[in-house]
Amino acid sequence: MKTIVVRNIVRTEAAVAQRLGALGVSTVHEAYGRDGLMKPYMRPIWPGGAAGGPAVTVLAQPGDNWMIHVAVEQCQPGDMLVVGCTTDNYDGMFGELLATSLKARGVVGLVIDAGCRDVKVLREIGFPVWSRAISARGTVKATLGAVNVPVVCAGVSVTPGDAVVADDDGVVVVPRKAAADVAAKGEARRADEERKRQRLASGELGLDMYNMRDPLARAGLVYVDSPEDA
Amino acid sequence: MKTIVVRNIVRTEAAVAQRLGALGVSTVHEAYGRDGLMKPYMRPIWPGGAAGGPAVTVLAQPGDNWMIHVAVEQCQPGDMLVVGCTTDNYDGMFGELLATSLKARGVVGLVIDAGCRDVKVLREIGFPVWSRAISARGTVKATLGAVNVPVVCAGVSVTPGDAVVADDDGVVVVPRKAAADVAAKGEARRADEERKRQRLASGELGLDMYNMRDPLARAGLVYVDSPEDA
Amino acid sequence: MKTIVVRNIVRTEAAVAQRLGALGVSTVHEAYGRDGLMKPYMRPIWPGGAAGGPAVTVLAQPGDNWMIHVAVEQCQPGDMLVVGCTTDNYDGMFGELLATSLKARGVVGLVIDAGCRDVKVLREIGFPVWSRAISARGTVKATLGAVNVPVVCAGVSVTPGDAVVADDDGVVVVPRKAAADVAAKGEARRADEERKRQRLASGELGLDMYNMRDPLARAGLVYVDSPEDA
Amino acid sequence: MKTIVVRNIVRTEAAVAQRLGALGVSTVHEAYGRDGLMKPYMRPIWPGGAAGGPAVTVLAQPGDNWMIHVAVEQCQPGDMLVVGCTTDNYDGMFGELLATSLKARGVVGLVIDAGCRDVKVLREIGFPVWSRAISARGTVKATLGAVNVPVVCAGVSVTPGDAVVADDDGVVVVPRKAAADVAAKGEARRADEERKRQRLASGELGLDMYNMRDPLARAGLVYVDSPEDA
Amino acid sequence: MKTIVVRNIVRTEAAVAQRLGALGVSTVHEAYGRDGLMKPYMRPIWPGGAAGGPAVTVLAQPGDNWMIHVAVEQCQPGDMLVVGCTTDNYDGMFGELLATSLKARGVVGLVIDAGCRDVKVLREIGFPVWSRAISARGTVKATLGAVNVPVVCAGVSVTPGDAVVADDDGVVVVPRKAAADVAAKGEARRADEERKRQRLASGELGLDMYNMRDPLARAGLVYVDSPEDA
Amino acid sequence: MKTIVVRNIVRTEAAVAQRLGALGVSTVHEAYGRDGLMKPYMRPIWPGGAAGGPAVTVLAQPGDNWMIHVAVEQCQPGDMLVVGCTTDNYDGMFGELLATSLKARGVVGLVIDAGCRDVKVLREIGFPVWSRAISARGTVKATLGAVNVPVVCAGVSVTPGDAVVADDDGVVVVPRKAAADVAAKGEARRADEERKRQRLASGELGLDMYNMRDPLARAGLVYVDSPEDA
Repeated sequence: MKTIVVRNIVRTEAAVAQRLGALGVSTVHEAYGRDGLMKPYMRPIWPGGAAGGPAVTVLAQPGDNWMIHVAVEQCQPGDMLVVGCTTDNYDGMFGELLATSLKARGVVGLVIDAGCRDVKVLREIGFPVWSRAISARGTVKATLGAVNVPVVCAGVSVTPGDAVVADDDGVVVVPRKAAADVAAKGEARRADEERKRQRLASGELGLDMYNMRDPLARAGLVYVDSPEDA
Repeated sequence: MKTIVVRNIVRTEAAVAQRLGALGVSTVHEAYGRDGLMKPYMRPIWPGGAAGGPAVTVLAQPGDNWMIHVAVEQCQPGDMLVVGCTTDNYDGMFGELLATSLKARGVVGLVIDAGCRDVKVLREIGFPVWSRAISARGTVKATLGAVNVPVVCAGVSVTPGDAVVADDDGVVVVPRKAAADVAAKGEARRADEERKRQRLASGELGLDMYNMRDPLARAGLVYVDSPEDA
Repeated sequence: MKTIVVRNIVRTEAAVAQRLGALGVSTVHEAYGRDGLMKPYMRPIWPGGAAGGPAVTVLAQPGDNWMIHVAVEQCQPGDMLVVGCTTDNYDGMFGELLATSLKARGVVGLVIDAGCRDVKVLREIGFPVWSRAISARGTVKATLGAVNVPVVCAGVSVTPGDAVVADDDGVVVVPRKAAADVAAKGEARRADEERKRQRLASGELGLDMYNMRDPLARAGLVYVDSPEDA
Repeated sequence: MKTIVVRNIVRTEAAVAQRLGALGVSTVHEAYGRDGLMKPYMRPIWPGGAAGGPAVTVLAQPGDNWMIHVAVEQCQPGDMLVVGCTTDNYDGMFGELLATSLKARGVVGLVIDAGCRDVKVLREIGFPVWSRAISARGTVKATLGAVNVPVVCAGVSVTPGDAVVADDDGVVVVPRKAAADVAAKGEARRADEERKRQRLASGELGLDMYNMRDPLARAGLVYVDSPEDA
Repeated sequence: MKTIVVRNIVRTEAAVAQRLGALGVSTVHEAYGRDGLMKPYMRPIWPGGAAGGPAVTVLAQPGDNWMIHVAVEQCQPGDMLVVGCTTDNYDGMFGELLATSLKARGVVGLVIDAGCRDVKVLREIGFPVWSRAISARGTVKATLGAVNVPVVCAGVSVTPGDAVVADDDGVVVVPRKAAADVAAKGEARRADEERKRQRLASGELGLDMYNMRDPLARAGLVYVDSPEDA
Repeated sequence: MKTIVVRNIVRTEAAVAQRLGALGVSTVHEAYGRDGLMKPYMRPIWPGGAAGGPAVTVLAQPGDNWMIHVAVEQCQPGDMLVVGCTTDNYDGMFGELLATSLKARGVVGLVIDAGCRDVKVLREIGFPVWSRAISARGTVKATLGAVNVPVVCAGVSVTPGDAVVADDDGVVVVPRKAAADVAAKGEARRADEERKRQRLASGELGLDMYNMRDPLARAGLVYVDSPEDA
């Protein structure tokens, strides 16, 4: 591992990141071809939070949040901080003081493949965090990692500058170069889903709306009248 | 596995299912002889939801929600949809559109041994779901399963038409033939518990109220005055 | 295992326990030298609850809550009840009736390395519980354990009378003899953190405030201008 | 739960159970339509063991092996003992003495959704066990369960008398009435697989042998020459 | 946490530790009143290893094996090294070089609530290890812990000098003062079990040998002739 | 996700891959700066297997091994096949027939972030597999994935052609461009470790050999004579 900090990264355009954030995780994930979703153990520490922005990345050592302190300086307004860990760890690497610092720089949220603490305060100040654990366990500042290098976070490879979107459904990552295209596809999908929603609400069946009956029959689905016919 | 849909199932009587729903999961589980409880990894996607009704069952393949679409047509007002999976899977098989469709048919809740998404919307529209995961991960419609066959869901065998009750404490299943008896026992238990609650609230000890002191002594429990006497 | 109940334990002084409770879990854990924290699987059954007090301890058998009934009698106003289990178990050993009984005796909270049920009622009556699971699964009263002996609960050794503090960040245990010292250190830490919070909120970087730049350089951290320089 | 012992069950015919055992788990699972497989956390306590026979079933309480002692009397030569548990438990419910007793009755193996101990001795005497844990944790004999009732074991519903097959790949259950048909299908499958194995060993590609190229192209698979073309 | 090394500890007598080791984990755990057993996630890294001796203890930080190096100097021939960790960690804190060093001092085995590597070599040189993971992940030497203080390892509180016994069934810890008594009880138990084993091998039922029929009937167990009678 | 197959990839040179394979996982991981190690849930399905070679990569859907069949054609002698999955899945995607096909093409091993079956046969024919589960669960061939695109496998990002080394300690991945350098560093490290091993075997302490006593004292480590001094 190279113990470096990369100062200049190319970020997903702010307007695009915001459009992705407005679409939400499930729509973005579908629009990106069902790709880029972090593992479902990543959960918001308080419900209802949502955020989207380009990724500043951190590679941290277990039980050591030194590199998060280093990363703060590299953040710009609108950024999302994404922390991967060199090995599975659940310690509380992030809390009120770091959140205060990130807020002061305009960072909109944190995604961390480790633990988080000071949950009540973070909720009160409205700083959203997605983490794999809530833990008060304190950490040291002893071993170097890296900032703004590609990291794997919760099963997804994240390159600095990629668009990150997070809400109650989880966290999704879209490569910078694909972001505008995914935003456009997501907006189209959303409009289409609204039409579908109205038809389903009126009682139309998905079986008919999606024309599933023929494929189901071809695949061999059989309807019987009662359990005894099974 | 037979890839079939059973059209006609015998449902637990609506009035009985509602009485069970009013009792709640813990009381029903006790009244049914401490049986029928799904594993505790099944959690409500939003707190405070509660539902009870006869089960329409689905057996789904991993990462594939085709059979849920098929099952919608088999649902009636008051039903609970119960989805088992042929293998452990955490993908988001269910979201806003399917919930809209189920609500249009009067279904009162979903129990799924897999993932769920669109959590925020489901909470807003008041559709309760109990699942093992929250995941935006999209699913395909490629491989057949079955509808209204017996399934194992979160460790419990569910026969179509069985009474399913779910709330913040989890999910319990009562076979149709036992449902009326369990409802009566549960109502008696609840009345009895209210009396006990009042006695305990007034300061009476459970040790006395339940006559535990003699059995404890016979089992060999010894009281000592201090740690040094241990 | 000795199947005993110890009647008289030496409790952490009430005023000290309350000061620790006011500091909260993360601060107490740091003030105690980053020690005493239970594993992060211990979670509050409802958000926002907080409690602190001396520990009355229970060693319970799997699926058996007999000893919790025994322990109620040993509790005093202000106590926290701490339940360890002889083997991993997730059953609902605790619910509304036991909570009613504990409240009647002035107990301020429960920490249980097993399951809990009647979650909705416990939230309504404001009785806070930290557990490893929510489960309606009923338990028997058949096998003896012990009350007020040292127990391991969620990875931490707890001696009866130790100070226990719990909130949204988890549960921490401080030995009785260290409690006053930890309270004083925690209060100093809190004051110091408030000063740091203000400096960080004003935009000062932790890198500067903590004087990290020199140690980072000595450890070998290198800043590069772009990914190509990496 | 009914606390009963059913004395007379209808067993899968011995010859059929042996044919299934000879086929092994993976082949039987496929021949039964990819159904009946227990969750993969069920592992042999020593490698290389294999067994097949009709199921005698036990429903046990957590940390309590009383019902296993009861079940021994109901076993006949060639039987497999299958133990489900009313709640997740990992205790060592089974060891050398019970294995000695089962061997004396001709039982060919144990499948237990809990823990097992005396692993070294069981290996030496050649008694095969599939369990979810190895644990020396001792159990009590205090609470009733049931023998020869339908149980859910590791996610599969088992009716007494069903055929159970277990080897290094896991454990599969086939309902008694389907057993002969599954055995025949499995034997045909095995012959077919031997032919396929020889063709693949000679270098023929599965893509050709299974005629996959057309379906892959229709599904949209694209071949590109280099990563730059992706 | 006090960052100290305690030089002189009082060890369980060598002869007693050896008697306990000869009895094996399951017998010692029973003879000690079903107490002292580590969680079953502690597994031998190679099958068939067995060891027993007084504990030298280490409290290590996550991803940091500095204190293990410190502990080597405190070990004497016949000792078992027991490593607890301040937080859940799976890294490979121990491998060939440390094993070489421990062997040179006569240490008979390692119990570590973290990861281990160089598994193949450790097997070849016959050094037994019980760990929660096998992982090649390297560790740093940056943060102090402690040596020969009480630690919690895999759910059990271990005081330096306690007797530790480990084999294929897991790891059990007996306090030094109880060790001689437990050894005597274990030897009596073993003799008794040999008698029981012979009776069971001859076909006698545990139901009769343990006189269980009456207690079962009193508890309410009912025998029925067929499933229809259930 | 692009559903493509990349035909031509640039592989780590065969001689380099073999040197890395000879060094083994732990040494390679250290020589690569403690990077590239897959999560420790990846275990060999039989002990003692070891392999190294350039990666051919597969991205598979849950419960679907279609892309593995596609990948076989892209393999060359000496390759390692590495399978990532779009979502957590434990099904038996790989067994005897695919192993036969891979062996016919000279592939030296499989690394799969899912399940594997036919374990006994794979051991007999000496084909090594590292997987997260052993499961007989059969899979379909219904949904496209990709071959020879970058994948995340067990927490590590793998680019086609990277060097993959696997043995009893796990699986490590080294980028192609770094492979020769890592091999050289690993060989130097191995020689150095052999010297250290001899010194430690002769009784020299790591404390002295590594010159740890001063840094430990500076970090604040204190030696006390007895527990009472702590």
